[in-house]
Amino acid sequence: MEIGQTRVICTACIAAGVPRWRKDSGLGWVTAEYGMLPASTGSRKSRPIGRPDSRGVEIQRIIGRVLRSAIRFDKLGDNTIHLDCDVLEADGGTRTAAITGAYVALSRAVNSGVSDGRLSRGIVRGAVAAISAGIVDGRAMLALDYSEDSTADVDMNIAMTSGGKFVEIQGTSEGQPFDSDQLSDMLGLASKGIRKLLTVQRQAILKKVRKGRS
Amino acid sequence: MEIGQTRVICTACIAAGVPRWRKDSGLGWVTAEYGMLPASTGSRKSRPIGRPDSRGVEIQRIIGRVLRSAIRFDKLGDNTIHLDCDVLEADGGTRTAAITGAYVALSRAVNSGVSDGRLSRGIVRGAVAAISAGIVDGRAMLALDYSEDSTADVDMNIAMTSGGKFVEIQGTSEGQPFDSDQLSDMLGLASKGIRKLLTVQRQAILKKVRKGRS
Amino acid sequence: MEIGQTRVICTACIAAGVPRWRKDSGLGWVTAEYGMLPASTGSRKSRPIGRPDSRGVEIQRIIGRVLRSAIRFDKLGDNTIHLDCDVLEADGGTRTAAITGAYVALSRAVNSGVSDGRLSRGIVRGAVAAISAGIVDGRAMLALDYSEDSTADVDMNIAMTSGGKFVEIQGTSEGQPFDSDQLSDMLGLASKGIRKLLTVQRQAILKKVRKGRS
Amino acid sequence: MEIGQTRVICTACIAAGVPRWRKDSGLGWVTAEYGMLPASTGSRKSRPIGRPDSRGVEIQRIIGRVLRSAIRFDKLGDNTIHLDCDVLEADGGTRTAAITGAYVALSRAVNSGVSDGRLSRGIVRGAVAAISAGIVDGRAMLALDYSEDSTADVDMNIAMTSGGKFVEIQGTSEGQPFDSDQLSDMLGLASKGIRKLLTVQRQAILKKVRKGRS
Amino acid sequence: MEIGQTRVICTACIAAGVPRWRKDSGLGWVTAEYGMLPASTGSRKSRPIGRPDSRGVEIQRIIGRVLRSAIRFDKLGDNTIHLDCDVLEADGGTRTAAITGAYVALSRAVNSGVSDGRLSRGIVRGAVAAISAGIVDGRAMLALDYSEDSTADVDMNIAMTSGGKFVEIQGTSEGQPFDSDQLSDMLGLASKGIRKLLTVQRQAILKKVRKGRS
Amino acid sequence: MEIGQTRVICTACIAAGVPRWRKDSGLGWVTAEYGMLPASTGSRKSRPIGRPDSRGVEIQRIIGRVLRSAIRFDKLGDNTIHLDCDVLEADGGTRTAAITGAYVALSRAVNSGVSDGRLSRGIVRGAVAAISAGIVDGRAMLALDYSEDSTADVDMNIAMTSGGKFVEIQGTSEGQPFDSDQLSDMLGLASKGIRKLLTVQRQAILKKVRKGRS
Repeated sequence: MEIGQTRVICTACIAAGVPRWRKDSGLGWVTAEYGMLPASTGSRKSRPIGRPDSRGVEIQRIIGRVLRSAIRFDKLGDNTIHLDCDVLEADGGTRTAAITGAYVALSRAVNSGVSDGRLSRGIVRGAVAAISAGIVDGRAMLALDYSEDSTADVDMNIAMTSGGKFVEIQGTSEGQPFDSDQLSDMLGLASKGIRKLLTVQRQAILKKVRKGRS
Repeated sequence: MEIGQTRVICTACIAAGVPRWRKDSGLGWVTAEYGMLPASTGSRKSRPIGRPDSRGVEIQRIIGRVLRSAIRFDKLGDNTIHLDCDVLEADGGTRTAAITGAYVALSRAVNSGVSDGRLSRGIVRGAVAAISAGIVDGRAMLALDYSEDSTADVDMNIAMTSGGKFVEIQGTSEGQPFDSDQLSDMLGLASKGIRKLLTVQRQAILKKVRKGRS
Repeated sequence: MEIGQTRVICTACIAAGVPRWRKDSGLGWVTAEYGMLPASTGSRKSRPIGRPDSRGVEIQRIIGRVLRSAIRFDKLGDNTIHLDCDVLEADGGTRTAAITGAYVALSRAVNSGVSDGRLSRGIVRGAVAAISAGIVDGRAMLALDYSEDSTADVDMNIAMTSGGKFVEIQGTSEGQPFDSDQLSDMLGLASKGIRKLLTVQRQAILKKVRKGRS
Repeated sequence: MEIGQTRVICTACIAAGVPRWRKDSGLGWVTAEYGMLPASTGSRKSRPIGRPDSRGVEIQRIIGRVLRSAIRFDKLGDNTIHLDCDVLEADGGTRTAAITGAYVALSRAVNSGVSDGRLSRGIVRGAVAAISAGIVDGRAMLALDYSEDSTADVDMNIAMTSGGKFVEIQGTSEGQPFDSDQLSDMLGLASKGIRKLLTVQRQAILKKVRKGRS
Repeated sequence: MEIGQTRVICTACIAAGVPRWRKDSGLGWVTAEYGMLPASTGSRKSRPIGRPDSRGVEIQRIIGRVLRSAIRFDKLGDNTIHLDCDVLEADGGTRTAAITGAYVALSRAVNSGVSDGRLSRGIVRGAVAAISAGIVDGRAMLALDYSEDSTADVDMNIAMTSGGKFVEIQGTSEGQPFDSDQLSDMLGLASKGIRKLLTVQRQAILKKVRKGRS
Repeated sequence: MEIGQTRVICTACIAAGVPRWRKDSGLGWVTAEYGMLPASTGSRKSRPIGRPDSRGVEIQRIIGRVLRSAIRFDKLGDNTIHLDCDVLEADGGTRTAAITGAYVALSRAVNSGVSDGRLSRGIVRGAVAAISAGIVDGRAMLALDYSEDSTADVDMNIAMTSGGKFVEIQGTSEGQPFDSDQLSDMLGLASKGIRKLLTVQRQAILKKVRKGRS
């Protein structure tokens, strides 16, 4: 997934079995992990010792939640989908790029599982994509890059379904708090941006894969 | 901080010095930690090994962000405020209870620092409080307890300033995604609920402390 | 459990099953964990990274040993009792307060298990309570608070049964070593103090619980 | 240090500097670590992952406390003595063997430091040694080996100075609790045993070292 | 670096300062880290908890040693070069691909540092490249892919300088041990293969970089 | 195992069962761990926190690989041999001393298992031993001690079978790279040295053990 200078590798691996706490429920599971290569940022970022850093933990929880909302666990059955989102280059919006790319990886993995008979149909409930928005100099803007992001007053991440509904809204004022009008402006922009991303996703899902891996 | 059956101990400790990456900036810092006693939940929750569990990490990042928005770091100077929010009993809404209580602890600690001359005036920019809302059976509701929370379609946490603006919005659909109208309903309820909490906070800040600790 | 300014929350949770190394023995198990809230001490104590600090490890091993001596594991059967002792405020004697309080929590949990038929009778062999003693300025004293403790030459922790016998003696000279007479004095004082604690425990075990939790 | 089948390597290394919390106090420090080789026990003991296991933590805290009581920190000055006690073969009484051997290592290291002028005189306040005792079949016994230890009702570890005073008493009833008479019997036996150990220590301190290492 | 299906991202970051143990020596340092993305292997490889797995540790130590042999630390001065080798796809020979690619990244980073004046000339002593060889069905072969590797009797990794000398030889018989003749055959093949890699490296070092990062 | 001043305790423990990934294969497993006592080196070496340090990880991987090559896993059956190599004193060549000593421990453990009927015959394929070599002042030398090692240009570790074939070659130029002639010289010396070690091993395997432990 490339958006601006940001590049994230998203992969989905489907493994038999579910976590222990979900055993014998008949329901599947989706889990996500997020990482950054040390050289993905301006100054080298050390590898996390023993676990993702706390920012990474927060991000991978959001990715997992959003992608789980796209899945019917009863149809997935006794399987776990592992989503891995690894940032090769970071220039703002890595978490929303990861969500959008992870949906493509997940869809292709599921499609491939359906075509070779390992999975049943109807697992994917519908598409989800995500985008970031913010308030810069009092005005709502979409998909901030790193330099815009640093000066923004609000950093908002929005995930929506292909049906135009919200799956996740997560917004923080890093400077001035924001009011309802600014919130509406950001959500309006995001809604348009996500519509474009959903189109790009559809094309990417259908594209032939270089080496047959999904 | 008690809200429903939920009880959270919130404390603020002010220590000289700031984290290394902030040295020589002249700016202070606020950091938050969140924990749950093992017996705070229905079935015993193991102590985290080596770090808060990932849910705790996400929550303490939110608490820290919201409370930082209430502080003028230039006035705080070369000091760090440590906020500790430990859940004694959990019955829904622990993260918003923690934010609301942490603001009281922070204010009292700052007031006490001002009165004994260690801190300058004007550190606290204004009050913040937080509340949870959700959609249960299609209708927006405020401050869900654990049993309501389990059946809610949306779990939303909102933090607002005494000026009525948003500091943090974090909402997730755990079942059905939600639309703009439902979002408005939840934000409207939250706005009213937070106004009440701000009143309670003001009283708590003024109250005498049992043993002079803040 | 409150003694002086020291306050410790003690809880007991009974869970089906025993640790792996005890499987198929027909015997139950009791295990204890000890923690301190960051704000429980004069200057903030950092949360332990990845495990209790070494002082906490030593203390929770002692708590576990003493409470295990009060239990008939053959009667407990295939169950584990988890004792959690979390210090809200520390002013000396937290480990002995934890032992004394943990016995109350354990008894109430067992009684509740007996009355709803999950547990058999006769699990609790007899009461245990603990108290600290020391030598200050050459004289034996009971239940030192933090400021006395800091200047004591000896720090001794004694746990005894309701039958007046010793379960654990752990004493360290932190300044001058002590002789047999001083040891006798400390054990004599402790014996009297523990008799009072055993009375308090009996009352606490019978008291109605606020919300039916033990 | 060999006692029965138990063999423990005890070494003392003196390094310039003290831990951070003790800086600029003019006082030295003594710290101890305790380990067991995997093959030291009947069935192989896994290497601890990331830290000594909790039993080891408790033991090394006791070793450190006892040896610190033998040292005048003002004379030691800005130096730290690291004591390492590693069990090659375990057959009961490893912690008391470790204390007794660590005192020899410490004395020789200090003597060697005094003779080459790195350390001042008068650092060692006096000798300390330790021994274990217990109650087997109702009778007090000294220095239990592993098979006696397993059936003992009480496991007691006593450390005493060359002046015949107590430095540490740590006793636990693992079966029947014990009364004052039994305690006196154990302390009496320990007192005699420690006198013999103090003689052995004196000889070991004077012995020439194979390769000049202490 | 791509060789066969194996793809490794190699980056070099030059940071001011050296590790503590090398301070005030006037000499620089080179360190390497090696990782695999979870989806780089046939079946998903879990992220290492807290550190590279032991295979990764061994590999990154070899990468570091080999690349250090290419550097004149006195010319590098008070700087550390961090090499990061992250495997995107693994199909045999990842460690030798990492060495070969890391040399390119290192050279480009040094050249860029020289041209903007941060570094002095003469830091790179000469080129190094590495290749794997093995014995399959009794015959020496070069650059085994994963399926060949699995059936090989010997797995050998050879790093050589542009002057045709050895920097590292690391060979293991995983089935039949090997004799001197087989060793000569493998080293002969490796020598030829490395000559080709050195040519490819030279071209890659001169190539324009997409976004000016090295 | 003593060679020069280097002393390593090597033990082998045979336990029923194999690691999970090897279950139901009918094949046994051999695994090695390597540690250094803190006082084994000139200046005290801290205990590794949570795992062997990276040098130790590399060494124990080599020990395990070499010893595995000596074993027929089909004959070993559903058993795991744990090799523990702990360095008491280090003066160069600890890893090759560990390999040579581990083979003795392994052989004795297997012989003892055969004689009491727990193991079948034919498990040990043949002897392996290891030695280090290097280039000092341009000349190949055998079994460098610590002071020679520090000035060597090449550090090479060679493991060979009693049949005179190579099992592991691991050589690194720490200063000048080396050419084929120097490699031949080192391998020639190693071959002679290993022949002597194989004789010593045979004697050690037959020797009576002090306390019947192997």
